[in-house]
Amino acid sequence: MPLRYDTLTFLSDYGRVDEFVGVVHSVVRAISPGIAVVDLTHDIAPHDTRAAGLLLARSVQYLCPGVVLAVVDPGVGGGRRGVAVEVGDGASVLVGPDNGLLAPAVAMCGGATRAVELDNADYQLDSPGPTFAGRDVFAPAAAYLCTGVALTDLGTEVDPAGLLPGVLPVSHVDDNGDLVAEVLWVDRFGNAQLNVDPVEVDALVGDDESVELAFAGGTRVASRSITYEAVGAGAVGLVVDSYGLVSVVADRGSAAGDLGLAAGTEVRLRVVDDEAANGRAAGVSVNIGEPRRRP
Amino acid sequence: MPLRYDTLTFLSDYGRVDEFVGVVHSVVRAISPGIAVVDLTHDIAPHDTRAAGLLLARSVQYLCPGVVLAVVDPGVGGGRRGVAVEVGDGASVLVGPDNGLLAPAVAMCGGATRAVELDNADYQLDSPGPTFAGRDVFAPAAAYLCTGVALTDLGTEVDPAGLLPGVLPVSHVDDNGDLVAEVLWVDRFGNAQLNVDPVEVDALVGDDESVELAFAGGTRVASRSITYEAVGAGAVGLVVDSYGLVSVVADRGSAAGDLGLAAGTEVRLRVVDDEAANGRAAGVSVNIGEPRRRP
Amino acid sequence: MPLRYDTLTFLSDYGRVDEFVGVVHSVVRAISPGIAVVDLTHDIAPHDTRAAGLLLARSVQYLCPGVVLAVVDPGVGGGRRGVAVEVGDGASVLVGPDNGLLAPAVAMCGGATRAVELDNADYQLDSPGPTFAGRDVFAPAAAYLCTGVALTDLGTEVDPAGLLPGVLPVSHVDDNGDLVAEVLWVDRFGNAQLNVDPVEVDALVGDDESVELAFAGGTRVASRSITYEAVGAGAVGLVVDSYGLVSVVADRGSAAGDLGLAAGTEVRLRVVDDEAANGRAAGVSVNIGEPRRRP
Repeated sequence: MPLRYDTLTFLSDYGRVDEFVGVVHSVVRAISPGIAVVDLTHDIAPHDTRAAGLLLARSVQYLCPGVVLAVVDPGVGGGRRGVAVEVGDGASVLVGPDNGLLAPAVAMCGGATRAVELDNADYQLDSPGPTFAGRDVFAPAAAYLCTGVALTDLGTEVDPAGLLPGVLPVSHVDDNGDLVAEVLWVDRFGNAQLNVDPVEVDALVGDDESVELAFAGGTRVASRSITYEAVGAGAVGLVVDSYGLVSVVADRGSAAGDLGLAAGTEVRLRVVDDEAANGRAAGVSVNIGEPRRRP
Repeated sequence: MPLRYDTLTFLSDYGRVDEFVGVVHSVVRAISPGIAVVDLTHDIAPHDTRAAGLLLARSVQYLCPGVVLAVVDPGVGGGRRGVAVEVGDGASVLVGPDNGLLAPAVAMCGGATRAVELDNADYQLDSPGPTFAGRDVFAPAAAYLCTGVALTDLGTEVDPAGLLPGVLPVSHVDDNGDLVAEVLWVDRFGNAQLNVDPVEVDALVGDDESVELAFAGGTRVASRSITYEAVGAGAVGLVVDSYGLVSVVADRGSAAGDLGLAAGTEVRLRVVDDEAANGRAAGVSVNIGEPRRRP
Repeated sequence: MPLRYDTLTFLSDYGRVDEFVGVVHSVVRAISPGIAVVDLTHDIAPHDTRAAGLLLARSVQYLCPGVVLAVVDPGVGGGRRGVAVEVGDGASVLVGPDNGLLAPAVAMCGGATRAVELDNADYQLDSPGPTFAGRDVFAPAAAYLCTGVALTDLGTEVDPAGLLPGVLPVSHVDDNGDLVAEVLWVDRFGNAQLNVDPVEVDALVGDDESVELAFAGGTRVASRSITYEAVGAGAVGLVVDSYGLVSVVADRGSAAGDLGLAAGTEVRLRVVDDEAANGRAAGVSVNIGEPRRRP
């Protein structure tokens, strides 16, 4: 029997230490044996719906069409709804809690065309308690969609406009002309992605090769580079990253570690003040034969 | 050629940093190319057969029928036997070391119907040393079972009654009327599962909405809740968890972290002493105009 | 349509926290839907091409024939080439950066029969930046190879002799007769694999049951054992490990932790000096009635 969707992409904050991910795979396979499951990640920090929503939005253009099962669900069992959100008139469906997690990816796909609340228990597992909706509600819904069960069989149709939106921070230029940005994501290598498009940097500094970064821990001059390598050892650079946004990077080192940046950290970008920069580069100078005195 | 079993579920303490898991996948695929492998977890703490046995017992009702390959094997290469244990008259087979790891799951499946010791080298890989039985003994046995090799071809039949039993801690009520329980498992979110059935709590406290927990670090009153959310911020609750046992939980926080609980920790449940509880809530009182004296 | 290769083995230093691994799986599946992807590991320490090269060389004899996608790429986007290296006259192809990562595995397979630089953009993804070559260059190349695209369609043929070699440390006997070795790898369990063949130990100590190990933190007598168990609690042993090399091990403990060994650490093996060893075992002795004096 051909599948309606043949790829299920799965992300969660379940970690890999407990059996949660494996059990969800088993539940999916029992319902929809032929499906290919692609694990996007399961190491979202517990309950971090913002990070998961951003990760999914970054990834979505590279995913195979099909069903996305996304479970980061601090309110599991409580008032939040479980939903399945169709995009592209059925090209794909995103399944998960209605807590903002799905919203950025849905927006990237052009918005929802239909949505249902997952309230039909016929497509759920019986369970002694309500704390593992990934296994009992979301995985079955995703797997049944793959087999061809209609979206509207999974529950009551709801207005997509009523789904909880994701909150994406927007950069802006302040009264001093600084571009006020925010770290969206620090990756494994310590690269810090900003909510900044390369054209915003062009508008800020023109053809300048460097940009001053101001952050809680101080300021730093970053060179605008194409590659990590071109940044040079010990220095900090700005590259257009693999998602087309501006990232603060180091060559074979962690820029986020060096500068103390984390997801949510504010970073201000501004034109380099050359006089000040020269002063810093020159440091405190002494003349030959004139040892620096103690104060 | 149709497979005898089409799902192989795999758990181990191999971690994901070394190549062990990937090499086992390769060995399985070389023998049984069409098989689907579901990874349950590979991050069992090294040599922790108790945790692995409990994890497998929790999961087993959700697994697809087939072969379970379970390798947590501190005695690898030594005196312990490698075994394949059939359950449900061949519905599934569990493969691993005979060190108690498989026993709780076998019991959950109604007990073993047959078992063999894996002593037929024809279904093993040649190896320079005996330290990676997962690759050389257990994975080939599991994969050959999937292809239709008979259980008894893998080695000498042994009496299932002689397999090493798992040791599951049993709760009991002591002379003071306390329910003496033990933490079976702390999950990623800090929920602490007890070896306690909800009916035991009913029997202990009747309709009371709260239960007193006593543990090495002190005592704490826990509310009996349906969801994490209902516990309320900063408080501790008891829920019926997704496996039907009683878990100590917090809302968007780690109950195990707050209370200092770990797998194996003793927790006593008792009726809340309302007077004592009121006293604690009131704290030590002073009257206006009468500063508390130093002792 | 039958695949030219039906297994793609994937290793990287991407970690599992970000979406990198999942996105590469998606890209591969979009190009070559029927392929089986075996994840060898993704937790190579960031940029550690040596560790990844050794891991791949250890694993390669156990892998299914097909395409190996290996990405540990500190110089991504810079001067290093991306390559596809054919071994066994097309039995398998290794795809990754030309930075020494692939070289030990290629050598294990008898050397390269052909190689190309991945410079044909027709088989790459468009990308806003050059920092995620795993997604944009290497994964598509590997996936297209599986579908039957010819090696030489992926780019310009290059001389395999010009590929960057891997540097494998070689053990040697010094003027004092010590066997000077190096730790190649410390696994999850704390076993420390040396670049030493068992025959080298035979040649050094003959039939002696023990070997003295000298390392930065001191010396230790290790027993030559078949299994971990035979080493005995608290002691250190040498076993022939599952790859046929000599490993320093403990029974249910971490030899590397106890001795302070890490990848790259020098370890010297020598004949046990029995007199010195007896002296150590005896310790400093005192006679009854003669308390040890302070110096």
